[in-house]
Amino acid sequence: MDDIRLARAFLLRVAEPPAGALGGFVDSVGPVAAAAAIRAGEVPDGVREETVARKDFEQAEADLVAARHCGARLVVPEDDEWPGWPLLALANALRGGKRWAAPPVALWVRGPARLDEALHRAVAVVGARSATSYGEHVATEFGHGLAGAGITVVSGAAFGIDGAAHRGALHAGGTTVAVLACGVDRFYPAGHSAMLGRIAATGAVLSEYPPGTPPAKHRFLVRNRLIAALASGTVVVEAGIRSGARNTASSTAQLGKPLVAVPGPVTSAMSLGCHDLLRAGTATLASTLDEVMEAVGQIGDLAPRPESPTRPTDGLGDQALRVHEALDPRRFREAEVVSAGAGVPLERVRALLTELELLGLAASGEEGWRRCARG
Amino acid sequence: MDDIRLARAFLLRVAEPPAGALGGFVDSVGPVAAAAAIRAGEVPDGVREETVARKDFEQAEADLVAARHCGARLVVPEDDEWPGWPLLALANALRGGKRWAAPPVALWVRGPARLDEALHRAVAVVGARSATSYGEHVATEFGHGLAGAGITVVSGAAFGIDGAAHRGALHAGGTTVAVLACGVDRFYPAGHSAMLGRIAATGAVLSEYPPGTPPAKHRFLVRNRLIAALASGTVVVEAGIRSGARNTASSTAQLGKPLVAVPGPVTSAMSLGCHDLLRAGTATLASTLDEVMEAVGQIGDLAPRPESPTRPTDGLGDQALRVHEALDPRRFREAEVVSAGAGVPLERVRALLTELELLGLAASGEEGWRRCARG
Repeated sequence: MDDIRLARAFLLRVAEPPAGALGGFVDSVGPVAAAAAIRAGEVPDGVREETVARKDFEQAEADLVAARHCGARLVVPEDDEWPGWPLLALANALRGGKRWAAPPVALWVRGPARLDEALHRAVAVVGARSATSYGEHVATEFGHGLAGAGITVVSGAAFGIDGAAHRGALHAGGTTVAVLACGVDRFYPAGHSAMLGRIAATGAVLSEYPPGTPPAKHRFLVRNRLIAALASGTVVVEAGIRSGARNTASSTAQLGKPLVAVPGPVTSAMSLGCHDLLRAGTATLASTLDEVMEAVGQIGDLAPRPESPTRPTDGLGDQALRVHEALDPRRFREAEVVSAGAGVPLERVRALLTELELLGLAASGEEGWRRCARG
Repeated sequence: MDDIRLARAFLLRVAEPPAGALGGFVDSVGPVAAAAAIRAGEVPDGVREETVARKDFEQAEADLVAARHCGARLVVPEDDEWPGWPLLALANALRGGKRWAAPPVALWVRGPARLDEALHRAVAVVGARSATSYGEHVATEFGHGLAGAGITVVSGAAFGIDGAAHRGALHAGGTTVAVLACGVDRFYPAGHSAMLGRIAATGAVLSEYPPGTPPAKHRFLVRNRLIAALASGTVVVEAGIRSGARNTASSTAQLGKPLVAVPGPVTSAMSLGCHDLLRAGTATLASTLDEVMEAVGQIGDLAPRPESPTRPTDGLGDQALRVHEALDPRRFREAEVVSAGAGVPLERVRALLTELELLGLAASGEEGWRRCARG
């Protein structure tokens, strides 16, 4: 297991995320062999392209030591606490050709929260850095209310909406997870050091960037896909026309997860992005915490799962049931065919098929998907 | 013509609007014969029920004199300026069983505007009386912008949003129409007397209630159907959970006309109604004047009609074309069948069929509608 962790620490540094070719290579040969092959230069072209610039960066041990110094650990997919369920959305989107969606090879984590438990029921609350006091008020209320309901609040620790959401959750004594665009050994922005310290003391501060990595513009965008993926849905509280929050919103929608936008005064530039998302039908409107829960609960993750289902399909949402019924037990069907049959958008079908596979209710093959009769 | 006007003045007083049975009776026997039959007590049961309580109210001449004293006139369907086109939506809805939608028998009008011209391109801007300064600001801007674009602003002259919309239109030097729930000889609310005076001096103050009629709670609801019908679409700027503006909104939607809602802070009780309409999908979101024009323009009335169309269907909107294509030239089809064929909601199909009939592109019969090849 130490080998695996060392290998994945190496892999996190050898390629700048998102690294789709590397991810696929690691999945097929395993992390230890993948690391060795990269060092030896014996890798497929796509992987070479992603790794060649840093293939001699041998800092895995130093990174693990640096992490330990700041109270951080490396969580790998081989760990029980790996948040595999939420991250499936990324693997799925990557399979659908979205290269930006490559899943993380591992995650540096600082804080006592077990990732699988903390992210079992989680909502991302994001928005503009230059938020208005109205936006910060709403974000604080939502963060507080979600955390009070036992739902983890995921955000990016930025000034404005992100910070307000984290603080609301902290005030409620709940769990909040900050996803950084730099190493977890440095708290960015510096003005939020105290807040990040509290998050690290009670929840989790995480990043796929090795210790010492400085924040960079492109890393914020790459980081946003993790926020969108780790939560069951995203609430955009305020967003300007070119806000980074719109990037998280777009990732959420492309991952087939529920997206909620909070309206605001039409005279406020900080609500323009939200109104655009609502007009386009990309997001649903939520003005209260109940409406947020209702919208995000659609994916099923927020609804308590029955302890002992009497039928295998108990606990599935309406769309999941329709997708299940659109599958054939004897023949594989393309996701497109299932989408048409179920009357459910393809993006959502892809997400639901992966969920059904995890529940043993569907199986995937080269030619698509078929229904399984579990239990 | 004097006989007709006298008869219709009598009819407006003999039944409390909306009077669906009376309207149908007048349509079939004409206003003069209808008035005589009512006086003689020789009418169908439905008409008797609507008129019996006031059948001896012989004030038609006095009403016309009182109107003249305050500078008002009685506009009847037989007049060229009768706004028959927008009011078709009411006749249509009444035919669909909506008794509240009975069209007015005539309209008392105070002001220089010709109704048909003023209402050719018109948008209703309505909202809460207890508006916030935010709501009044938006209503003023929209009223100003619409009037500046040559579009008539229709509203109810109430405090709050209505007044702000009228004032915006007045400031732009445009046309605005106030629809009252009392006689046009009295300006209600009294605090808006000066504003109503300016509207009567430049646009039109109108009502179906005879001179001297006091405002009453139910009359505001009945009046709201006229606001919804006279405009091509309605913008709700602010509305509380139980606002009268929601009644106008609901009428607009039921008449198959575009409904637009302006979002606001989720912390404002005055935006709750708007957010509800948006969440329910009853209204589309508009945050700018362009978005209002885009939404309301869908019905086609706001788009300039081509002077000399090369094809009969030129100038029809997308939905009107689909409805036209879903008709059969040789057989009558029920509106429901046309709706399914065109993929256009039944409510909208009913409105569009009436438009198509007026354009000579459709004909109605006992068994439904068929396509005509005009031109």
